[in-house]
Amino acid sequence: MTTLPPISQNKMFGGTQSVYAHRSVACDCDMRVSVYLPPQAKTQKCPAVVWLSGLTCTEDNFTVKAGAQRIAAELGIILIAPDTSPRGDGVPDDKDSYDFAKGAGFYLDATRMPWAKNYQMQAYVRDELTAWMLDNFPIDKNRIGISGHSMGGHGAITLHLKNPELYKTCSAFAPITSPSQVPWGQKAFKGYLGDDKNTWKQYDATELVSAPSKTNILIDQGTDDNFLAEHLRPEIFANACKTSGQATTLRLQEGYDHSYYFIATFIEDHLRHHADGLGD
Amino acid sequence: MTTLPPISQNKMFGGTQSVYAHRSVACDCDMRVSVYLPPQAKTQKCPAVVWLSGLTCTEDNFTVKAGAQRIAAELGIILIAPDTSPRGDGVPDDKDSYDFAKGAGFYLDATRMPWAKNYQMQAYVRDELTAWMLDNFPIDKNRIGISGHSMGGHGAITLHLKNPELYKTCSAFAPITSPSQVPWGQKAFKGYLGDDKNTWKQYDATELVSAPSKTNILIDQGTDDNFLAEHLRPEIFANACKTSGQATTLRLQEGYDHSYYFIATFIEDHLRHHADGLGD
Repeated sequence: MTTLPPISQNKMFGGTQSVYAHRSVACDCDMRVSVYLPPQAKTQKCPAVVWLSGLTCTEDNFTVKAGAQRIAAELGIILIAPDTSPRGDGVPDDKDSYDFAKGAGFYLDATRMPWAKNYQMQAYVRDELTAWMLDNFPIDKNRIGISGHSMGGHGAITLHLKNPELYKTCSAFAPITSPSQVPWGQKAFKGYLGDDKNTWKQYDATELVSAPSKTNILIDQGTDDNFLAEHLRPEIFANACKTSGQATTLRLQEGYDHSYYFIATFIEDHLRHHADGLGD
Repeated sequence: MTTLPPISQNKMFGGTQSVYAHRSVACDCDMRVSVYLPPQAKTQKCPAVVWLSGLTCTEDNFTVKAGAQRIAAELGIILIAPDTSPRGDGVPDDKDSYDFAKGAGFYLDATRMPWAKNYQMQAYVRDELTAWMLDNFPIDKNRIGISGHSMGGHGAITLHLKNPELYKTCSAFAPITSPSQVPWGQKAFKGYLGDDKNTWKQYDATELVSAPSKTNILIDQGTDDNFLAEHLRPEIFANACKTSGQATTLRLQEGYDHSYYFIATFIEDHLRHHADGLGD
């Protein structure tokens, strides 16, 4: 068990819900992470699911609103939910945007200044967060899955497709799966990466899925999601999956929107999907 | 079904999570209420549980953090969570206190000015909220329970003991059950009611339980609750219950604190307690 001092710690469903801060060299700042340890983690190594949140979120939203700990306690899954961008006074921001800079790191490694100095969220999540969580918690490194919401669904699917040996299972809620073709993604990619669209492909799930992973990706999408038609457009990704042979289950959930009420409703299915894929 | 325009509405677990505002004559202001309708409410009358929140909370905390809707959907229970005090520019406040005035109505009818004009939370919850919820939602008026947390646990138990025909079942998390004997209650009662301790008794569960109700009151209390020894002191109420013959189940939950992580862990037990007591 970790000897790190937590920022907060609460008993929940027989396990421990904590928030930590740790240094990120990639992002050149301290990063906050929410960690739920189920009761099983007291005595054995457990699988883990990394949760990537959406625009405007921190490590807090999933922790407080999704109700995921109940199922994690039942299934013996460790939940790891990092922040969505670098933070702090020294980190540049775009105060007029909810969808760029702080709270909107897009899980990529920025190449344009002033963003490149801190906005290295792909390297942070894939390398630093992985090392930190394996060092500090009883996680079976061969049983890690990844999931997320909206911008975090984009992060989860792209990180899974590029690192299938690290993130063995994948699911997403209302993910941005064709960022190069929608305004949210175009704004972020132009800002962080510049105008050369070739550099965008490494962060676009619809491009990356031409090399499919071996596992089925579970996607839930609400039909009353305000962002569905403009920013999410799951049909583009579904078609790309069909073409490449990527196994995907896209469930259109009638009447559900983009909120955590939607996530709370279906998070049990997602954690069971990961538990099934990660095995015993 | 209501034709009231909601402030917000989200599909959740097959039902509908909404927030409404309605006029309170007693509090002389608009009051916000969170309402969860389970799927069963589309076709039949359902039992309801009124949830009273604790200090500093609004209608939002329980709605977002407790994870109660999942069980409510399974059991077919309507959840009604009002705000904890009158609100608005015209309502007097004590800005230096988190435990008095706004966010801290204590579910009583104030008699001292300037509080008496708005702080009529007992009359609001018992009379106006009841009438409003029965008018607007398919609630079986013979199957209403009440529950709450901390200050709201105090509200739930006192309202149940004084109105056992209205609130047929009762439970509480970390309730203030002897307010006349602890600093939180003493400050509130002095401010709202004045120095005459005889006027406090009608709002003190330990006093009221001398006339016990016919139903078992379920209470969960975390042993690591920071407020346990100074403000909560459940043993005083437990002894009074023993003396008067009030059926109570007081569960001391090892290692749990005062937070919604504690509530989320045990809310399923509480809603099942209400469902059992309210019957079919």
